[in-house]
Amino acid sequence: MPQIIECIPNFSEGRNPTIVQALITAVKSVPDVWLLDHTMDGDHHRAVLTFVGPPEAVGEAAARAIKVATELIDLRRHDGKHPRVGATDVVPFVPIQDVSMEECVQLARGIGQRVSADLGIPVFFYEQAATHPDHVKLENIRRGGLQGLASRIVSDPTWAPDFGPKRLHETAGAVVIGARQPLIAFNVNLKTDDLTVAKAIAKTIRHSNGGLPCLKAIGVKLASRGMVQVAMNLTDYRVTSMHTAFQAVKTEASKRGVEIIGSELIGLVPQAALDQTSAASIQLERFDSAQVLETRIGVVMSRGH
Amino acid sequence: MPQIIECIPNFSEGRNPTIVQALITAVKSVPDVWLLDHTMDGDHHRAVLTFVGPPEAVGEAAARAIKVATELIDLRRHDGKHPRVGATDVVPFVPIQDVSMEECVQLARGIGQRVSADLGIPVFFYEQAATHPDHVKLENIRRGGLQGLASRIVSDPTWAPDFGPKRLHETAGAVVIGARQPLIAFNVNLKTDDLTVAKAIAKTIRHSNGGLPCLKAIGVKLASRGMVQVAMNLTDYRVTSMHTAFQAVKTEASKRGVEIIGSELIGLVPQAALDQTSAASIQLERFDSAQVLETRIGVVMSRGH
Repeated sequence: MPQIIECIPNFSEGRNPTIVQALITAVKSVPDVWLLDHTMDGDHHRAVLTFVGPPEAVGEAAARAIKVATELIDLRRHDGKHPRVGATDVVPFVPIQDVSMEECVQLARGIGQRVSADLGIPVFFYEQAATHPDHVKLENIRRGGLQGLASRIVSDPTWAPDFGPKRLHETAGAVVIGARQPLIAFNVNLKTDDLTVAKAIAKTIRHSNGGLPCLKAIGVKLASRGMVQVAMNLTDYRVTSMHTAFQAVKTEASKRGVEIIGSELIGLVPQAALDQTSAASIQLERFDSAQVLETRIGVVMSRGH
Repeated sequence: MPQIIECIPNFSEGRNPTIVQALITAVKSVPDVWLLDHTMDGDHHRAVLTFVGPPEAVGEAAARAIKVATELIDLRRHDGKHPRVGATDVVPFVPIQDVSMEECVQLARGIGQRVSADLGIPVFFYEQAATHPDHVKLENIRRGGLQGLASRIVSDPTWAPDFGPKRLHETAGAVVIGARQPLIAFNVNLKTDDLTVAKAIAKTIRHSNGGLPCLKAIGVKLASRGMVQVAMNLTDYRVTSMHTAFQAVKTEASKRGVEIIGSELIGLVPQAALDQTSAASIQLERFDSAQVLETRIGVVMSRGH
């Protein structure tokens, strides 16, 4: 099985298709890199690319896209609703196949050193690649927005960047680079239009308020559908699964006399996260992916006769 | 994506490893055929091979194995516990990838015609390949065992074979060949040693007693584990899923004040059956296998840049 890493860089440009196309072109210019998805959102003023490939190629593609973003995006003229600290805001590397988290960390650090040197831009390492506990969580790095980071980076030794100058780049801010597990965006819709219910459930189940580990949650109103939603990020499905998260929302909703309408997955989900959920839902005593017909076929065929 | 058919022939030999090895060798002698699994059971006196490959190769491998079984297995000296009507008892072809059920039916019929002509053995088509409604279910063909079929084939026009002589082969009986959906063997274990509970639940939920379609179930005592089990076959998981079957057992057990200990999958399970179960368990409003990361990677890579 070839090594595969996924990279999901977020850029602070969601309106100008020419710039987003230039970012895509930079990624696709690297052989063996495969673009899986790209989205742009005008309100958030943000674009997200998703691509995969072998470690070196994925790192190269990320570095080229960061260079293009630094050249074309000017944060001084930015008014998007999404929090951000850079033209290239955040660049996570995710292990997918035959790659360890350590290799993703090394890739993140190597690319961070390279782009800071090439572009004169401060780089912060986050999540598994973080070198300081305060830098692990993206929301900590973003606290106070671009201005908050601009002042901390100068005044607070804790907030010295891992590489690059101790001041933000004039037009491109900073770049946050790191390694993490696949993140699952999983939302559960409630049969009520009372936002306080969704907010209360989110507060009860999320880790930051003492709830389930590796679970982030907020309550969101879906005005056009006349309902509210508990919008979740599962940052490590091996710790808190979709099944556990769903059951937690269902239990909390039930306490408040509210039914579940259904749920939705945003973006891509690892096969193992689905398999884990089905195994849990039918209380399988043992489950081995070698029992999956297609997986067995793949293993047998790759092994040869 | 290459065409893949699965074949799971059952042979009436579960004690002599030399004969089982000869069957395996016959299957493996065909290029492009991949043996996924083989089991032999002395009590049942039965061996099951599981192999996959492109349609023509899988048909060729099945024909070669049927020839070897006809030459080496003598049903007159058979005392296994499992019901049977042939040295090669039953040969199902299952569509796995980029193959229609109709192609599996055509393959079954072609191989049936060939082996009946080559070996002078009567062939019955069953399940999707059946040409007579009484032949659809294997249990109908097996009714009365080898002797029952031996007398029906001579006396009852309904029981004329699809190809071959209107009498059983002296040493090898008959061969039942057909096409069907993947079958899932799925068992739920109950926190009681009262076999009547498992039998009552099985009777309530199985199709033959007016329960769930495409679900077969029996109650089984697991003496060594001090519990009973509802042992199920899901003959079309798209009609009745593992999730539905599990919930049915759980509901019926609960009515009788009995808890579920857990469940187990025997043999291989299609990925889609697991995905369906996870989607149902978290009430996903939409699920598309294109949302599975590994599937998306496979599709994008096979499509080219």
